[in-house]
Amino acid sequence: MVVILKHNVEENEIARMKGILEGYGCKVTVMNGKDYVVLGLLGDTSDVNIEQIQAYESVDRVMRVQEPYKKANRAFHPENTVVDVCGIKIGGNKVPVIAGPCSVESEEQIVEIAKNVKASGASFLRGGAFKPRTSPYSFQGLREEGLDLLKLARKETGLPIVTEIMSADMIDRFVSDVDIIQVGARNMQNFELLKQLGKTRKPILLKRGLSATVEEFLMSAEYIMAGGNENVILCERGIRTFETYTRNTLDLSIIPAIKKLSHLPIIIDPSHAAGLWWMVEPMSKAAIAAGADGLIIEVHNDPEHALCDGQQSIKPKKFDALMTKLKAIAAVEDREI
Amino acid sequence: MVVILKHNVEENEIARMKGILEGYGCKVTVMNGKDYVVLGLLGDTSDVNIEQIQAYESVDRVMRVQEPYKKANRAFHPENTVVDVCGIKIGGNKVPVIAGPCSVESEEQIVEIAKNVKASGASFLRGGAFKPRTSPYSFQGLREEGLDLLKLARKETGLPIVTEIMSADMIDRFVSDVDIIQVGARNMQNFELLKQLGKTRKPILLKRGLSATVEEFLMSAEYIMAGGNENVILCERGIRTFETYTRNTLDLSIIPAIKKLSHLPIIIDPSHAAGLWWMVEPMSKAAIAAGADGLIIEVHNDPEHALCDGQQSIKPKKFDALMTKLKAIAAVEDREI
Amino acid sequence: MVVILKHNVEENEIARMKGILEGYGCKVTVMNGKDYVVLGLLGDTSDVNIEQIQAYESVDRVMRVQEPYKKANRAFHPENTVVDVCGIKIGGNKVPVIAGPCSVESEEQIVEIAKNVKASGASFLRGGAFKPRTSPYSFQGLREEGLDLLKLARKETGLPIVTEIMSADMIDRFVSDVDIIQVGARNMQNFELLKQLGKTRKPILLKRGLSATVEEFLMSAEYIMAGGNENVILCERGIRTFETYTRNTLDLSIIPAIKKLSHLPIIIDPSHAAGLWWMVEPMSKAAIAAGADGLIIEVHNDPEHALCDGQQSIKPKKFDALMTKLKAIAAVEDREI
Amino acid sequence: MVVILKHNVEENEIARMKGILEGYGCKVTVMNGKDYVVLGLLGDTSDVNIEQIQAYESVDRVMRVQEPYKKANRAFHPENTVVDVCGIKIGGNKVPVIAGPCSVESEEQIVEIAKNVKASGASFLRGGAFKPRTSPYSFQGLREEGLDLLKLARKETGLPIVTEIMSADMIDRFVSDVDIIQVGARNMQNFELLKQLGKTRKPILLKRGLSATVEEFLMSAEYIMAGGNENVILCERGIRTFETYTRNTLDLSIIPAIKKLSHLPIIIDPSHAAGLWWMVEPMSKAAIAAGADGLIIEVHNDPEHALCDGQQSIKPKKFDALMTKLKAIAAVEDREI
Repeated sequence: MVVILKHNVEENEIARMKGILEGYGCKVTVMNGKDYVVLGLLGDTSDVNIEQIQAYESVDRVMRVQEPYKKANRAFHPENTVVDVCGIKIGGNKVPVIAGPCSVESEEQIVEIAKNVKASGASFLRGGAFKPRTSPYSFQGLREEGLDLLKLARKETGLPIVTEIMSADMIDRFVSDVDIIQVGARNMQNFELLKQLGKTRKPILLKRGLSATVEEFLMSAEYIMAGGNENVILCERGIRTFETYTRNTLDLSIIPAIKKLSHLPIIIDPSHAAGLWWMVEPMSKAAIAAGADGLIIEVHNDPEHALCDGQQSIKPKKFDALMTKLKAIAAVEDREI
Repeated sequence: MVVILKHNVEENEIARMKGILEGYGCKVTVMNGKDYVVLGLLGDTSDVNIEQIQAYESVDRVMRVQEPYKKANRAFHPENTVVDVCGIKIGGNKVPVIAGPCSVESEEQIVEIAKNVKASGASFLRGGAFKPRTSPYSFQGLREEGLDLLKLARKETGLPIVTEIMSADMIDRFVSDVDIIQVGARNMQNFELLKQLGKTRKPILLKRGLSATVEEFLMSAEYIMAGGNENVILCERGIRTFETYTRNTLDLSIIPAIKKLSHLPIIIDPSHAAGLWWMVEPMSKAAIAAGADGLIIEVHNDPEHALCDGQQSIKPKKFDALMTKLKAIAAVEDREI
Repeated sequence: MVVILKHNVEENEIARMKGILEGYGCKVTVMNGKDYVVLGLLGDTSDVNIEQIQAYESVDRVMRVQEPYKKANRAFHPENTVVDVCGIKIGGNKVPVIAGPCSVESEEQIVEIAKNVKASGASFLRGGAFKPRTSPYSFQGLREEGLDLLKLARKETGLPIVTEIMSADMIDRFVSDVDIIQVGARNMQNFELLKQLGKTRKPILLKRGLSATVEEFLMSAEYIMAGGNENVILCERGIRTFETYTRNTLDLSIIPAIKKLSHLPIIIDPSHAAGLWWMVEPMSKAAIAAGADGLIIEVHNDPEHALCDGQQSIKPKKFDALMTKLKAIAAVEDREI
Repeated sequence: MVVILKHNVEENEIARMKGILEGYGCKVTVMNGKDYVVLGLLGDTSDVNIEQIQAYESVDRVMRVQEPYKKANRAFHPENTVVDVCGIKIGGNKVPVIAGPCSVESEEQIVEIAKNVKASGASFLRGGAFKPRTSPYSFQGLREEGLDLLKLARKETGLPIVTEIMSADMIDRFVSDVDIIQVGARNMQNFELLKQLGKTRKPILLKRGLSATVEEFLMSAEYIMAGGNENVILCERGIRTFETYTRNTLDLSIIPAIKKLSHLPIIIDPSHAAGLWWMVEPMSKAAIAAGADGLIIEVHNDPEHALCDGQQSIKPKKFDALMTKLKAIAAVEDREI
């Protein structure tokens, strides 16, 4: 950590600040620049309260040198984490695809789609039972009944299921019923939920918040991991920018960034990012080419009558053709789908 | 609602789309432009599922004419909502100030600050008991004990108390203990929490999410109001932009925007927006000049030892001087603080 | 165009506004909704001054139906534009790569790099002679001398050259000396420069501004095309968002967006977007997979001594390995590099 | 400057990097942390090429301690700069208001508005002669004729004139004809233009670019000042964010930020920020309350027929009432308008 003092700060104040910082158990090096005095802190600075330091009137700025996340940090865990879900590995050489409708709507719907995506090579079935909707007047999902239908589709196809949790009081039900618990973008900093999920050992699919930095994203993973659950799968689904042509802006550069900073797997959701079905194909291909560890894609057999997000779902036939292309792109780096 | 079809769409497809839209119970006007066909929908379009319409291949875009929020909409409720909290009115001519520390730390701390801010003219005491922190390793608040200390400070000073709730399972405790329940920016779209708060009749201080549009902000208020609780106070606390000199960018233009679109009161939090104590004074003055219905300001008697957010807290003496200025600015529009 | 009037507007005001809009030569349809009155305009609305309409007190909002760009619009020009530069086609099946250093520094440097990138399969040589630098104290480029060195490198290798223009008074020199004139992101809305370039017939590489929407980007292309120069190549190089881990956020979804809205070719600059050399490889691969019509990549033989942007340049050996991968990805869609 | 090396870098590489950095003439302190090695640079680091340092493979990150601007930096110029324009001071105790139409349209228009705003207390007349328009098909201003009409209005009223320059070839004309030369947001990083303006001694009104950070804004001022022209007036006019309800987001926190970082005056343009006439009043009041050194406001006598930006112009009567309020708010801090 580096503490920059204000211009023209006096000698005794420098000494006082040095003493305060040493009080945190760090070794402090004073560097007297031409216009600035800089205090360099060595040792374990993770207990230093940056906000307190910044509250001192003689302090201009504090710059952190070390990342604030530990368990999610590749520096302390150089090997890739591979999350094993029912024998399917996420984060390794194989690149699994999760596919399915935005919402579970009926037995026929979910079972038919599940069969279709399985036939095309999907490894997991997705489907919303509890739906976070911007409007209280929109369809909120089949809720518990939706979970039952997902289980039915799993039984019919063997595909493990992924679905979103919206509050901590549902954790027991989710732990027993689903294979991967998804935390949506809007709950990425619902810290009470993250803490409770940290107590389970279920794989967690953590979506990046709409305006979360890479560091904040990893800090939310850290919340889950700090509780003891290291089965975290990160998911980029578009960030909020000034551009409104697409619903959000898919930030594919997060793939190499996460690979450098963390050992956790990172997958991409091209459907929610753009919010436009005809962008799903090119963005899925780009994600695989950039090194994503997986994809989560919305597929619906009848988008024009889908109860939600029909505009961003592709039909099974398009999905099937897409999977063929994705396999060819993955093969360029000797990965398999 | 206006549905724009693709270029060169054929006559029978236009007729088909007209029929589909009429199926929602709307009257549909077909306008044949030189390059576009536009379908205008009249009647109650609130049941039309925009996402479904956009999933049709012949549809280019759908533009909504009507706002999606109803109970929060000034069009259907022209008078200002005035929320009454223990006899103090928010949204009327008087402009109450909420003040207090980021976190409740001890009895001495919270009682002393409460007395100070009351003496300077604050109407409410704020203080965090449950703290949403980016890092799992940061101080998470005194939790239940913090609530008890807030109640003690209320007893000593008579100031009603405002504090943040972080999960729905605490609602009963908050309803019985606090005067205004705050929903933090990170939970603005925690829809399960909003729904539960809608079932209470407690005043809710709803903070704008870091990347929430004005419309999304009002839709979150709508979630609470749809449940029957119309005591919603909106709060702007800075939005996330490319600028990092300040922690967030305080968007004061939301004050006239909300006044036009909604009847709900809007207050400003200058402390969290900038994250820099020396910006609190100018931004508080600007907020009052722009017509804010209140302020929420962090005041700490010892920022250099505050357990959180010391860098954005002002001392009681500065707060006292600020209140004098704020009164003079409010008087320009015949408002009182 | 659709004009939405305020709530509760009176009959005679509706009639007055209808008359005003008809004065622009449009046919106006009045749609009386439950809560809104909407006026639909048919005919050529390109002369309607939206800002004037919005200035009327009875007008709530104006929504445009038609895109404001004409010559750049795919609706009026369904075939892809293929720009021919010295026999190399941009926008067709072949995907050319432009490569070279940030700045031209010396004869040895530019000639050596030119030979290297040509050997690896690059189709064009890039190199900055006039450099737009944030700081007036940074190296500003070799200027005219840099142009001469580029010409020398072209002579040695046969690679056509691409370099950035910074002011209109240099146009004659650029027209005679270079093969593609680049307009940098900071000058994307330097309208006087665009107008002058519209009078030439040189291929223009137009970079997207850091905060330009897709529509604004196409409107800047329209400025050049309105002057008669239709040889415009669009280039995405990252947009400004809240994320600061990368210098800018590469928006690859612009590739399918541009393909839908316009007939102009779109290429990608992965080097400037991230500003980090180790992101160039994955982002280049992603761009090709998403359907980009070309790439522009910074390559330097000695990045640690480069006079600018060394941190985002890759070495010739890395570039060579990358080209092999890119060819394999392009082949998936039967394109060639 | 602080250079952070990669994890696990070896001793001889640390020594090598130390030597390289000393080669720039700095004293280098090596701090060996638990997980990081940090090199602190003392002395004049302004010649150190950060991009080169970051290109070394053993370097993780470089953090600058010192601001990159010198002449615009308050640290080296503690007194406020007061720009004197025809005897009117900007940056002192008095807070001048610049008012007038978006575009100069005719003699009657500009002279009438000039008389009106003068009567209400405006100190300067604004009016666009050369207009930067997003569309090549929009009104581009009366150009040279517009300048002549502005001079006429100045002659009639005595108000000094402010107008925007769009290219360097017009500098001589502007220097002889106008009193303050405005550089628009889109040209904030048109460095060739800034360099040429640095050679004049005219007051320059420099508008912040739509996505310019505070630091980039000050660096553009530095370009002008580095040429010898220290008469720079900064102007905030809204930044681009995700929020589209307003055209841009007015960032008033830049006022205290600039006051801390620089000695240059900062004024506010509420008209362009929001793009909505009914926001001009509250945002003007907020700007004055926050400590702005001036305002630039669009006033039009007939907004419904204005050739540009009618939707954001207020009428002379509204402007007159606003000026009265602004005087009262300025008086709270003993400033005059």
